[in-house]
Amino acid sequence: MTRAKASLKKRCARIRLLLMDVDGVLTDGRIWLQSWPDGTAHEIKGFSAYDGAGLKLARVAGLRTGVITGRSSAAVTQRAKEAEIEFVFQGRGEKIPAYEEILRSAQVSDEAVAYIGDDLPDLPVLARVGLAIAVSNAVPEVKRAAHYVTKHEGGNGAAREVVELILKSQGKWTSVLKNARA
Amino acid sequence: MTRAKASLKKRCARIRLLLMDVDGVLTDGRIWLQSWPDGTAHEIKGFSAYDGAGLKLARVAGLRTGVITGRSSAAVTQRAKEAEIEFVFQGRGEKIPAYEEILRSAQVSDEAVAYIGDDLPDLPVLARVGLAIAVSNAVPEVKRAAHYVTKHEGGNGAAREVVELILKSQGKWTSVLKNARA
Amino acid sequence: MTRAKASLKKRCARIRLLLMDVDGVLTDGRIWLQSWPDGTAHEIKGFSAYDGAGLKLARVAGLRTGVITGRSSAAVTQRAKEAEIEFVFQGRGEKIPAYEEILRSAQVSDEAVAYIGDDLPDLPVLARVGLAIAVSNAVPEVKRAAHYVTKHEGGNGAAREVVELILKSQGKWTSVLKNARA
Amino acid sequence: MTRAKASLKKRCARIRLLLMDVDGVLTDGRIWLQSWPDGTAHEIKGFSAYDGAGLKLARVAGLRTGVITGRSSAAVTQRAKEAEIEFVFQGRGEKIPAYEEILRSAQVSDEAVAYIGDDLPDLPVLARVGLAIAVSNAVPEVKRAAHYVTKHEGGNGAAREVVELILKSQGKWTSVLKNARA
Repeated sequence: MTRAKASLKKRCARIRLLLMDVDGVLTDGRIWLQSWPDGTAHEIKGFSAYDGAGLKLARVAGLRTGVITGRSSAAVTQRAKEAEIEFVFQGRGEKIPAYEEILRSAQVSDEAVAYIGDDLPDLPVLARVGLAIAVSNAVPEVKRAAHYVTKHEGGNGAAREVVELILKSQGKWTSVLKNARA
Repeated sequence: MTRAKASLKKRCARIRLLLMDVDGVLTDGRIWLQSWPDGTAHEIKGFSAYDGAGLKLARVAGLRTGVITGRSSAAVTQRAKEAEIEFVFQGRGEKIPAYEEILRSAQVSDEAVAYIGDDLPDLPVLARVGLAIAVSNAVPEVKRAAHYVTKHEGGNGAAREVVELILKSQGKWTSVLKNARA
Repeated sequence: MTRAKASLKKRCARIRLLLMDVDGVLTDGRIWLQSWPDGTAHEIKGFSAYDGAGLKLARVAGLRTGVITGRSSAAVTQRAKEAEIEFVFQGRGEKIPAYEEILRSAQVSDEAVAYIGDDLPDLPVLARVGLAIAVSNAVPEVKRAAHYVTKHEGGNGAAREVVELILKSQGKWTSVLKNARA
Repeated sequence: MTRAKASLKKRCARIRLLLMDVDGVLTDGRIWLQSWPDGTAHEIKGFSAYDGAGLKLARVAGLRTGVITGRSSAAVTQRAKEAEIEFVFQGRGEKIPAYEEILRSAQVSDEAVAYIGDDLPDLPVLARVGLAIAVSNAVPEVKRAAHYVTKHEGGNGAAREVVELILKSQGKWTSVLKNARA
């Protein structure tokens, strides 16, 4: 094992809570808007079935999950429910206050937290957490701030990849698979 | 013909019923959600015109079809109708009971069934059927459990590819084409 | 100029009417369905701004346009209006009767017609027209039946490419560009 | 620095106002239409979270922004608000009159304006501005008329790329990043 891999494994071993941005992380960063006849516009977001299944497996395996996003929508509320995401903080342009609230509520410290981000507002959180992750479609500044860059794109398996990375590092993926086959 | 191809051809020759998962198989795995002004969110799924046409050709050629999915939506109900899918089982997180119900109803046994899957919940069914198929976008565990991995992606021609594979193996594709040209 | 190119140019020179399939030609073949709270599902189709602009330029340059599709939707009606498409025949699973109706109405014969298709139901029309075109995402049987296969995909510039191909062959593209720059 | 780069940098240094087309520039050029049960069709456009964030950063850094588009929709109105776009001119098939109105209102001259376009109707404006930009998905005629062609596609980071290009040329990007990290 290379030194970089050993260091990553050590970081993963401590994670108890996986936090994520939404746009560009649980979606591909597209903001779809439909014009309605009354002159209003209504947003559509595209999530991944693989991410959803992965986040549910995370919960079963004891890894807690949450999202912090600057925007706010019913779509995220419903998707969080479907994927059994525990902490859902929307409308938070500034992410650090929400981050600290979640840490207090979950009773964990920085090194037990992984965070997946893609753009500049994620930088302050990425600088704090034990495992800083950038999706493959993140801006260069975020990739440079990350311990790990995903192979999959946001909204297309990146969150699933991180769940597997952490659970495999913790030796919990085999029993997840055994359950799935039963 | 290689031994692997001969074995695949033999499996295809016995198929009378083609079953499929929906998300990631008849779609690309994206779960789209639109936020409505009343605070609810409404799902959109993207299907393929090629898959739809292929599934209709399957029925004409005497190959029965069905879907088993963990989610439930009006979109799947309508798309199944358009593609003339005979067995439609939605809201079935556990797939084996639905699978066995379909087998009893269709009066066929495991070796006469093909199943196309993409993620862990499909593993128990894939372990049973005569022809186990993974879409090209399936997770690695599902690909390893498959007799055949499609070239096309889910929601982008994978089901059509399987229909052609089976009908060609059974020598029925030529008459399908002759009809189309008439 | 190669013989194939000269033959294509000759076919293009005669075209007065450009007919098209819709799904897979003016769209990428995706059929999107949204589930509504009342249990119905409502379709979404994705068209290309480049195709729309190209079809409007065609009309200005005297090339008439039309669509023949097996499905039927308000989306196609509106898009046809926006792109100033003259002949709009929807709900026509069998395309030849609609095709012949358009020919009578437009007072043109087979060799003056170009048709763009992508799947088996397009084969009978492609066998008749003076210029048979397959989009790059067409099924192999349709590509084999075509005089020209587009570089662009359906719903992503294929129709625009054909408009330019015809207008350039007829020496009309330069004045189209001159108008655009004015 | 090559002569071309020096010339581009000089053009960027003068820019005070960034104008953009919408379809194909702030979107990927897809026009999505949903059929509603009352026979009407309602449009959906897909924007980029990266573009939105970039345009907000532009405003903070003192670069004014605007859009001129031939179509008209509530989606563009809302997205312009979210991205804090100052000048929003919709339903303008002919772009020069809208362009001149914005110049008078913003009190800037041609050489202080950058414009991002993708198709033929953008040519007259591109011929006037100090910095003419084509997205990577622009038609060839527009690319030939541009001082700069983006690496990113429209609706997928092209506007963000231009904001960074201008702000970096003006030495303002470092303080943007410093603010983001605070």
